[in-house]
Amino acid sequence: MRRRQFLTAASSISAAGALSATLPAPAIAQSRKEMVVVSSWGRDFPGVGTGAQRLAKRIEEVSNGSFKVNYFAAGERVGAFDVFDAVADGNAQAYISAEYYWKGKHPGFAFFTSVPFGLTYTEMSAWIHHMGGQDLWDKLSADYGIKCIPAGNSGVQMGGWFNKEIESAEDLKGLKVRMPGLGGDVMAKLGASPVSLPGGQIYENLISGAIDAAEWVGPWNDYFMKFYEAAKYYYYPGMHEPGGFASFGFNASWWSSLQKSEQAMLTAVAQAENDHLMAEFNANNGIYLDKLIDEHGVNLRRFNDDVYDAFGRAAQEVFILTRDHSSLAREIYDSFVKARTDVGRWKNLSEASYYTQRNRVLGVQ
Amino acid sequence: MRRRQFLTAASSISAAGALSATLPAPAIAQSRKEMVVVSSWGRDFPGVGTGAQRLAKRIEEVSNGSFKVNYFAAGERVGAFDVFDAVADGNAQAYISAEYYWKGKHPGFAFFTSVPFGLTYTEMSAWIHHMGGQDLWDKLSADYGIKCIPAGNSGVQMGGWFNKEIESAEDLKGLKVRMPGLGGDVMAKLGASPVSLPGGQIYENLISGAIDAAEWVGPWNDYFMKFYEAAKYYYYPGMHEPGGFASFGFNASWWSSLQKSEQAMLTAVAQAENDHLMAEFNANNGIYLDKLIDEHGVNLRRFNDDVYDAFGRAAQEVFILTRDHSSLAREIYDSFVKARTDVGRWKNLSEASYYTQRNRVLGVQ
Repeated sequence: MRRRQFLTAASSISAAGALSATLPAPAIAQSRKEMVVVSSWGRDFPGVGTGAQRLAKRIEEVSNGSFKVNYFAAGERVGAFDVFDAVADGNAQAYISAEYYWKGKHPGFAFFTSVPFGLTYTEMSAWIHHMGGQDLWDKLSADYGIKCIPAGNSGVQMGGWFNKEIESAEDLKGLKVRMPGLGGDVMAKLGASPVSLPGGQIYENLISGAIDAAEWVGPWNDYFMKFYEAAKYYYYPGMHEPGGFASFGFNASWWSSLQKSEQAMLTAVAQAENDHLMAEFNANNGIYLDKLIDEHGVNLRRFNDDVYDAFGRAAQEVFILTRDHSSLAREIYDSFVKARTDVGRWKNLSEASYYTQRNRVLGVQ
Repeated sequence: MRRRQFLTAASSISAAGALSATLPAPAIAQSRKEMVVVSSWGRDFPGVGTGAQRLAKRIEEVSNGSFKVNYFAAGERVGAFDVFDAVADGNAQAYISAEYYWKGKHPGFAFFTSVPFGLTYTEMSAWIHHMGGQDLWDKLSADYGIKCIPAGNSGVQMGGWFNKEIESAEDLKGLKVRMPGLGGDVMAKLGASPVSLPGGQIYENLISGAIDAAEWVGPWNDYFMKFYEAAKYYYYPGMHEPGGFASFGFNASWWSSLQKSEQAMLTAVAQAENDHLMAEFNANNGIYLDKLIDEHGVNLRRFNDDVYDAFGRAAQEVFILTRDHSSLAREIYDSFVKARTDVGRWKNLSEASYYTQRNRVLGVQ
């Protein structure tokens, strides 16, 4: 669709609009808004994909049909990684994606999905909503004609599938590893070769031996990808993506044209999806982890302290490069680090201590 | 307000309704709904109170004024603990409160706020939205003419303020402890005397020596309560309330009278508050914990394994009594335990492992 066509489709002519030509304008009637939403997730892909589709539907429900959302999964209208440009150019009103895909445009974007040694879901929300994160995101996105908000989180990811045991950082050297975002850069610092592949191509590359290891999401999603047929060692905890937010990015001019109440509605529905999608991952991951182990003999392994220390040193090198990119990158990094320290200290005393004690006492393992 | 008065106030006569007497009815105009919301939280009380007020305002914003919310803090219309009956009787459309206050009506209610050795925020959301929790809550509330949904979480609470060190379960014997819900019952099993006091009366009882210990919420809220003037030992992690949901309870007949889109709007806005309030607690607790230690010399203490083991044994006794109350109580308990096991196992591998490794490597403590 060309820009001219979009402008016609996006105008407010609708059933209600047509009606108002013959009736006096009602005091509280709103004009119907049409929204083209392009997504980076495959149609019906469990978790992020079904969550994005649920979000699109919920906008229609909550707005009582005053928003009509035309949702296109990856490839149905534009490619998975083309959604940002489509929205920036005005060929769609919004995208649902992950900001770290745009780290080539500006490394600051990675921080609004998830970065190595970064924030968990609830820490991300604290930073975005209450510690300056959203303002910095707005500043970054505005340069590209985008307004972006979070719309669903996938939580702490597994460390990935490996075709051999990883007992020291040495064991990572020379491995071809599918890992996007700054996590891939950390792997590169340790001598591995990060490879960027969309979800649909990971299995074939792993089974053919073109890659040696891959991370995707977590037990629920990974179960259906059948990675266990090629790589038996499943590592935790992932350092690369501890609380990845899906992002709902709007064409900034279109966003500005909305009423305040319409912006509030879209924001509330997207924010509800943060809670809902995280809950769905948590409800399913434990169950599917059991199935992976019981049905497919997957070997669950924990990265040891030495490997984690090496990840930490490499992540710091990556962060220094990222921070030195520009003054905005530095501003984002500094704000992120402050949030991680302030909230992270509280997490030690609250969730981390509580899970440890509760699960020890109850024998949950 | 009597039932008759409420019925008048709740009818759909409004600005828009009056207008429609002189104009043809617009196709998509909605009638304005008036909502009286009574809350158990004090006016402007940071966290749960300000969160409830934000929720009320957001309903008006998102609905573009088609809902008018008249919000009453505790005591402004009915007492903090009278909100449930007010809504059940139809004297208000909704309450914002915590379900464990109604454990005297049915012990099953406690599970929908938080119970000892219970679920954290993200685990609660997993259970409520995706593992059968909401259905059981609906079943329980329906008997009282209420429909209830979650509306904000306060996260893992601190273990409380004590006027002496707690080095074994023996040290709890004879202490008068302010702790509501089933957590208080656990304390009683260990020989302490649980006392139920509204927030505004805790300080005076602690400073006078009428009670020896008290839990309230966490560092952010507790800072302003000045408990440190009476009790210097501040313990973590709390076993009694690891992920307390505020609840948004509607008069069931009123809820049924709403359009589907109106129910969807209220549900989305309340669910957004789950994310938002939890984020606010996480953003503030670490910062205020530092202030408590630096400005007021608070002694931070961790409950040791022996004390936690004793809490665990006592909690199990309390659960058995609760479960044996009725078949619905058993159904709720069994569903809760399954969620705790399935999600809890995943939490060991994900958040608990990740916080431990990240914070160790970075030196966040």
